[in-house]
Amino acid sequence: MERSVTSSASLSSAGASSGSPALIALDWGTSSLRGFLMDGSARVLAERSNAHGIQNLSEAGAAGFEAALAGLCDDWLDIRPTLPVVAGGMVGSAQGWVEAPYVTTPADATVLADNAAQVMTAAGRPILIAPGVLHDPVGGIPDVMRGEEIQIAGALAEDSGWARDACIAMPGTHSKWVRIADGRIMGFSTFMTGELFAVLKAHSLLGRLMPAGLDAKPEDEKAAFDTGIQTAQSAGPGDLPHQLFATRTLGLTKRMPPEALAHYLSGLLIGHELRSGLALLTEMPAGTPLLLIGDPGLCRRYSRALAAFGTTPTAQLGNTAPRGLFQFAAAAGLLPSVSASPSSTESTS
Amino acid sequence: MERSVTSSASLSSAGASSGSPALIALDWGTSSLRGFLMDGSARVLAERSNAHGIQNLSEAGAAGFEAALAGLCDDWLDIRPTLPVVAGGMVGSAQGWVEAPYVTTPADATVLADNAAQVMTAAGRPILIAPGVLHDPVGGIPDVMRGEEIQIAGALAEDSGWARDACIAMPGTHSKWVRIADGRIMGFSTFMTGELFAVLKAHSLLGRLMPAGLDAKPEDEKAAFDTGIQTAQSAGPGDLPHQLFATRTLGLTKRMPPEALAHYLSGLLIGHELRSGLALLTEMPAGTPLLLIGDPGLCRRYSRALAAFGTTPTAQLGNTAPRGLFQFAAAAGLLPSVSASPSSTESTS
Repeated sequence: MERSVTSSASLSSAGASSGSPALIALDWGTSSLRGFLMDGSARVLAERSNAHGIQNLSEAGAAGFEAALAGLCDDWLDIRPTLPVVAGGMVGSAQGWVEAPYVTTPADATVLADNAAQVMTAAGRPILIAPGVLHDPVGGIPDVMRGEEIQIAGALAEDSGWARDACIAMPGTHSKWVRIADGRIMGFSTFMTGELFAVLKAHSLLGRLMPAGLDAKPEDEKAAFDTGIQTAQSAGPGDLPHQLFATRTLGLTKRMPPEALAHYLSGLLIGHELRSGLALLTEMPAGTPLLLIGDPGLCRRYSRALAAFGTTPTAQLGNTAPRGLFQFAAAAGLLPSVSASPSSTESTS
Repeated sequence: MERSVTSSASLSSAGASSGSPALIALDWGTSSLRGFLMDGSARVLAERSNAHGIQNLSEAGAAGFEAALAGLCDDWLDIRPTLPVVAGGMVGSAQGWVEAPYVTTPADATVLADNAAQVMTAAGRPILIAPGVLHDPVGGIPDVMRGEEIQIAGALAEDSGWARDACIAMPGTHSKWVRIADGRIMGFSTFMTGELFAVLKAHSLLGRLMPAGLDAKPEDEKAAFDTGIQTAQSAGPGDLPHQLFATRTLGLTKRMPPEALAHYLSGLLIGHELRSGLALLTEMPAGTPLLLIGDPGLCRRYSRALAAFGTTPTAQLGNTAPRGLFQFAAAAGLLPSVSASPSSTESTS
């Protein structure tokens, strides 16, 4: 939020109108729908959310999407019938409202806008939906993102240095490590860290020794998390399926209290992600900024883990999706009073 | 089975009686109970099983174990009331009939026998239960096995060369890689390969693209499995959580047919296990035999994967548990006409 405010101040000095609604931006994921009413300076005027992610709609097909959207913000839509509406996230997947097929790297807000899909509501309101991004390296394995490309566009709008050159780590269910050069997404790797943690805790033998609803003492939690990271630091290739089993044996041998075992597992998985992610960072130019974008609590865990690797993130950002949706809308020409590129912004002031 | 017959021939030449029951051996795991009526030459005279593993008993407590055992072989027990009964596997765990606490490495059949637990049935029949094994390296993470130590004792009884020095790979839900020296288990590592595969297929996003009940064409299956292995071979430390995600992206990008994706996942996980397991093997003396013990179908997959690493197992064994239970009983002095150690066998002949 603070980031959006900071940015809007600089943009509003460029002459964009401040305060009056210019855009309805939708961050529409698997489990939730978030709506942002934004002004022409990328300032969030109002923010709402509901649980109608694309896997939790009241009806199948377009009607389910219509109902979720109306439930969130029919007043925003009705009061200003010409306000542009954009959306990003899983709403553009094959299971979404309309599919916006992946664009390939390199990709930036302009590429996203040039390849966006459009859906028309029953009331005739167009919604521009951002595509996801495919990274398909020669001789490597393909990777995809959908939703993160919008957050990245938002982050890069914050600082021109980052847009030039950055490594962006986005912790989550499916963490992304993204290489940025010249303002574009050049490549990325997905890590199933969050999902592995959740699935192993809920469905594997490892969860059996973890007591539900019982918190570890803070010092035990930290010690277990750090042991997980240290274990990851000592890993050779292929060691993870073995090291995972220690979540059980550390409990069986009473080396760790049961309520701390989940923190060992968390540290171990994050540690493995960092081994691989930081190896990507070392392939980038020396001094490349490392940005951390995600849930603040999760980013704290990653910062602690990064410290164990002797690394400090250059910046930690919260939700950059609204700003990214704004950049996407601007690149699509939906915000006539502003432009995505700084030089043309200056020419209008 | 053939292995047991071979061995019994050599033992029977040492004077042990052949053909008449000398032992009831129980391989009692999590999901099944297997009983073997054996003669004094380690020959299996009869074999039975039921689904009453320790997590599938009809009643809680001792009564459940009693009922499962009676259902399997009350006739064996009644007809020869003095026949010794031994058991190995999860029946000796904290959730078993009686706990036989872990012994620490180094361990062999004699150590298992010296630290066995005994339970008495309601009818007053003693059952000797083998302990599991704990490996707790200084500065490392602890590891445990329960059931495999019996299979290992059986395998080492097959060939004196293996007993001297071997690496034993035991593919399964929780694969074990075991270092043998001087007939003893010196150390081992557990890999959650099988459980990771099952849990990710059933409960993670990766399983969503895998059609249920649809087999891949054999050539697609092999190609996907091999791609998984090759991907594992290219892995640096920490890469697994990333490479797992390719199970999804290879499907999304139609690089692999949906019904082959599970084989990529299988090859990837087995490949990672082999990276780590074969690294353990290289730390052993040159020429150390590599034994593969387990389900024949699974061993075939591992053999194919090993070939990709340029390695061929020295031998592949099926179920060595009956022979191992026999060794355990002999070491406990329950088979007066035979002995676990070759030298004393000679002295009785």
